[in-house]
Amino acid sequence: MAYEHVFHRRVEFCETDMAGIVHFSNFYRYMEQAEHEFYRALGLSLMIHEPDGATVSWPRVSASCSFKSPAYYNDILTIRLRVERRGVKSLTYRFDLHRDEPDGSSTWIAMGQMKTVCCRFRPGKPLESIEIASPFSESIEEAPAEVTRGTA
Amino acid sequence: MAYEHVFHRRVEFCETDMAGIVHFSNFYRYMEQAEHEFYRALGLSLMIHEPDGATVSWPRVSASCSFKSPAYYNDILTIRLRVERRGVKSLTYRFDLHRDEPDGSSTWIAMGQMKTVCCRFRPGKPLESIEIASPFSESIEEAPAEVTRGTA
Amino acid sequence: MAYEHVFHRRVEFCETDMAGIVHFSNFYRYMEQAEHEFYRALGLSLMIHEPDGATVSWPRVSASCSFKSPAYYNDILTIRLRVERRGVKSLTYRFDLHRDEPDGSSTWIAMGQMKTVCCRFRPGKPLESIEIASPFSESIEEAPAEVTRGTA
Amino acid sequence: MAYEHVFHRRVEFCETDMAGIVHFSNFYRYMEQAEHEFYRALGLSLMIHEPDGATVSWPRVSASCSFKSPAYYNDILTIRLRVERRGVKSLTYRFDLHRDEPDGSSTWIAMGQMKTVCCRFRPGKPLESIEIASPFSESIEEAPAEVTRGTA
Repeated sequence: MAYEHVFHRRVEFCETDMAGIVHFSNFYRYMEQAEHEFYRALGLSLMIHEPDGATVSWPRVSASCSFKSPAYYNDILTIRLRVERRGVKSLTYRFDLHRDEPDGSSTWIAMGQMKTVCCRFRPGKPLESIEIASPFSESIEEAPAEVTRGTA
Repeated sequence: MAYEHVFHRRVEFCETDMAGIVHFSNFYRYMEQAEHEFYRALGLSLMIHEPDGATVSWPRVSASCSFKSPAYYNDILTIRLRVERRGVKSLTYRFDLHRDEPDGSSTWIAMGQMKTVCCRFRPGKPLESIEIASPFSESIEEAPAEVTRGTA
Repeated sequence: MAYEHVFHRRVEFCETDMAGIVHFSNFYRYMEQAEHEFYRALGLSLMIHEPDGATVSWPRVSASCSFKSPAYYNDILTIRLRVERRGVKSLTYRFDLHRDEPDGSSTWIAMGQMKTVCCRFRPGKPLESIEIASPFSESIEEAPAEVTRGTA
Repeated sequence: MAYEHVFHRRVEFCETDMAGIVHFSNFYRYMEQAEHEFYRALGLSLMIHEPDGATVSWPRVSASCSFKSPAYYNDILTIRLRVERRGVKSLTYRFDLHRDEPDGSSTWIAMGQMKTVCCRFRPGKPLESIEIASPFSESIEEAPAEVTRGTA
């Protein structure tokens, strides 16, 4: 059972905008990549194909991000994911993005949150939210309260 | 003085993902486009270049989005922007995205919020937040409470 | 039968990079949008779903672009598509992107080419290239040689 | 002096489209990343800031790509860059993208080319193409003909 994952991601040139900084929409992509790396580290597939043709996956319910400090081309961001809440059908992740500085300090770049719900897709049928499916349910747990309460 | 703007945007093929729907990160881009269309409708420039070489613009403080229903390739989205709050230095926008259906109904696709702060950039100096600069201050006002309280 | 289409597209902020200009990868997206607008103008769908579950669509064989002059945020680009060649199974488009200037002149921004092939997708089967399917075959023709030879 | 570089890149979910494959515009971004990794491996910066405020960098002249086989979410692509031609002011790169298969074979995904020209940017002045600047000129050479002629 795991409740956190740390991932490093270099900022690419095409992710910057004419203000010279990472365009804010890309932070949501970084958050998603951290989530997918978390699954990968646990040996989980983002989409589970069931024998009867259905697929189980994780549409987003909501995502938010607070931008603390700009990120720049070539920055190596450290993205820490924590499972802030494991509900019956949903997972709520918290993400903290930092950049290590040459002087040994760390700059807090952004803090995000994403709620995602376990769903079954059947071709031609409406999306159905379901209890967190196996093997996700055996692998992912909620972070202890003292971790979630901790400073970034 | 204006406090709302309605903008239409067709979903492009490259904005979809392998789940067959608009990737959630693109909703933040739609929100930004609605903001820029709002400025355009008011005759305002996103960046104001001051005589002394400084630039006034609007970095994001935070952005959030709740995803109500998926959007698909070729959908024409109606994006309604409202100024939910005008602070001394910041503007908080609310965005509602809908799709009109063939039967005359409307599907609520997403509801977003974005807080943005007026800042002056001077080359080689740290970013400085400032009181909402002219001509933004003469053109943009907070929506009346009854509008903000209204249903989507 | 049609062999050309003209489309206007405003450059969005998120399409610029830290060099202050449109990131070159976005020109391929503009080309694709012009192609899709061409289909729309002809009443054609990008993907045709056949009664037996197969889908007919147009994967890319190759795409190239020459960058003549940078494009900037807020530019309104004029994108002219022409059918440079209609083969048995493929279409080769040429795209010219211009920006109208305040003095009445026009700046040539980019010239692109894209070859795309008509294919049938059957779930679980390899992709199969096919002769240009109806209704594409009744709607799209090759531009006359004198049009293709014309200057941009 | 170096003339080639090999880089690995995992396909991200947001790079796929509703056809279930990597959107073709992203291959140009992969090519650019390979170029930037090549510079990084040589200790070179993408942009060189000169003492007088000018910047030396590499705008694109043209870029093309042939798409041989689709790439999918989670694929780890091997991107091989070679300096196909070193001109007086320009570099022309060739890129070959492959995916290793479980059976030990390799699938050729795409073959690209990008021509980029060394330029000096001075604020408020038109862009000026220049002879390949130091330290690029001391670090990058043309691949021997027998390498360039080699099969992918």
